[in-house]
Amino acid sequence: MPKLAVQRVTVIGPGLIGGSIGLGLRAAGFAGTIIGCARNQTTLDAALQRGCIDHGTSNLAEACREAELIVLCTPVGSMEKMLNEVGRLNSTAVLTDAGSTKRDVVDAAERVLENPQCFIGAHPMAGAEQSGPGAAQADLFEGKPCILTPTDDADPRALEIVETLWTTLGMKLLRMSPAEHDTATALFSHLPHALAVVLVQTVAEASGWEVASTGFAGASRLASSNPLMRADIMQANRSALIGAIDACIDKLNGLRQTLDADDRQALLQLLEETKAKRDDWIAGVPID
Amino acid sequence: MPKLAVQRVTVIGPGLIGGSIGLGLRAAGFAGTIIGCARNQTTLDAALQRGCIDHGTSNLAEACREAELIVLCTPVGSMEKMLNEVGRLNSTAVLTDAGSTKRDVVDAAERVLENPQCFIGAHPMAGAEQSGPGAAQADLFEGKPCILTPTDDADPRALEIVETLWTTLGMKLLRMSPAEHDTATALFSHLPHALAVVLVQTVAEASGWEVASTGFAGASRLASSNPLMRADIMQANRSALIGAIDACIDKLNGLRQTLDADDRQALLQLLEETKAKRDDWIAGVPID
Repeated sequence: MPKLAVQRVTVIGPGLIGGSIGLGLRAAGFAGTIIGCARNQTTLDAALQRGCIDHGTSNLAEACREAELIVLCTPVGSMEKMLNEVGRLNSTAVLTDAGSTKRDVVDAAERVLENPQCFIGAHPMAGAEQSGPGAAQADLFEGKPCILTPTDDADPRALEIVETLWTTLGMKLLRMSPAEHDTATALFSHLPHALAVVLVQTVAEASGWEVASTGFAGASRLASSNPLMRADIMQANRSALIGAIDACIDKLNGLRQTLDADDRQALLQLLEETKAKRDDWIAGVPID
Repeated sequence: MPKLAVQRVTVIGPGLIGGSIGLGLRAAGFAGTIIGCARNQTTLDAALQRGCIDHGTSNLAEACREAELIVLCTPVGSMEKMLNEVGRLNSTAVLTDAGSTKRDVVDAAERVLENPQCFIGAHPMAGAEQSGPGAAQADLFEGKPCILTPTDDADPRALEIVETLWTTLGMKLLRMSPAEHDTATALFSHLPHALAVVLVQTVAEASGWEVASTGFAGASRLASSNPLMRADIMQANRSALIGAIDACIDKLNGLRQTLDADDRQALLQLLEETKAKRDDWIAGVPID
């Protein structure tokens, strides 16, 4: 495995994701310096105490000054502002992010950075129920997919460093365009969240919560996610998400019609086809 | 805890549910005889081998003849036919079932039984991914809710025996009318399943399955349920399920409008309210 060819890494936002990057790099034998930057001193203290970072600062200029690789683990809603500030403080560092949407982030990088070719958009598909550096884990990313969205004029050295960062953390790299990424995550990540929210909304005022059991708990789990983070993601990816919701409403209407017509044959076929599709995916069979 | 006041229990369909009833009764110290009835000899052999039943037979008359309590663990789609046959073979035994819908089952009991007052509809809300007696567990029902739907003229002795059966297995009893049960399970059980199916259907033809991760796996899990069993349930409860789907489509359209209007305040409020509702439920706070 190639070694990370930088000595000084800055993590902006050393929370669950940023803190796990620090822990994971250390666990993989990274011998350089890891700087954490957060506005909140409690976050910095916790990240230091967990060993996620070597130094913590709330001063962005200090955090960016000598960094060779800067990883933005900040909410997607503030990514443009953060890219703008970081780019002014250090125009030569390699930049990557961990945002859950990519069109808006890559567009912002193109717009505000002096050297956008040094920015390689990334979406490490890992997470946990908890947040903050207290929940960080060295193996959070192990075996999970990481989607990279380099533009055509991405700097090859920057791309190599960013690829090495995520593979050092154990991730399986995928490459997509920002638009492909956003369409795929709208369907496979943001739509499941939207359905969990809508499910809870549908039953919110109903009586009968005492019959809710493990099936309901699993189906509604994503509705317990962080509202601020989720609102950011939904807004950043809203056109793709609206498309996914429209497609889903069509299917829901189709199922309703099948039930209304009491068409057992069509119902069975639908249930068998969707079961087969999901079972194949769970079993690791390539799905085309 | 009251003791089960019968000595001879017949389980029709000793699969996951029926087999677990046998194992659970035995584990709770039931000293009487447990008869299993199934068409399939392999099921009977497995149920015998696991200790779910004392005797197995594929002859329904033999299974019912001397039974004091008969538990129907057969698919809801064949419940009317089964109640009819069982009622003709033994008109005095106490009867209960484990079906996931109740209006159709209770209506059928009223229609076909000579003594419908001896039938107490039940829905033990427990299950597992696997099926068959091989998956049966003595503690499958432990701590889970069981909904009973006795009619106004239910026989008090039958009700007491059926209540004792399910509490002996560790279940928490709830009482509802068949209609209340079906409305509640449409919302809290059948709608979550329908949404999982529709989610898989929506993404079935899309590219990007490689980005699907734990969130998608959880949200789609119920789509892997047994199609025959699920089709039976959806058809048996279709009017309530159609109502639940309509309510859900309304909420989905509402979310779509909120996204389309880019109304951050409304979006945040929705996400916060649904998270609070679900978190309260998960924490065991009574939800009104």
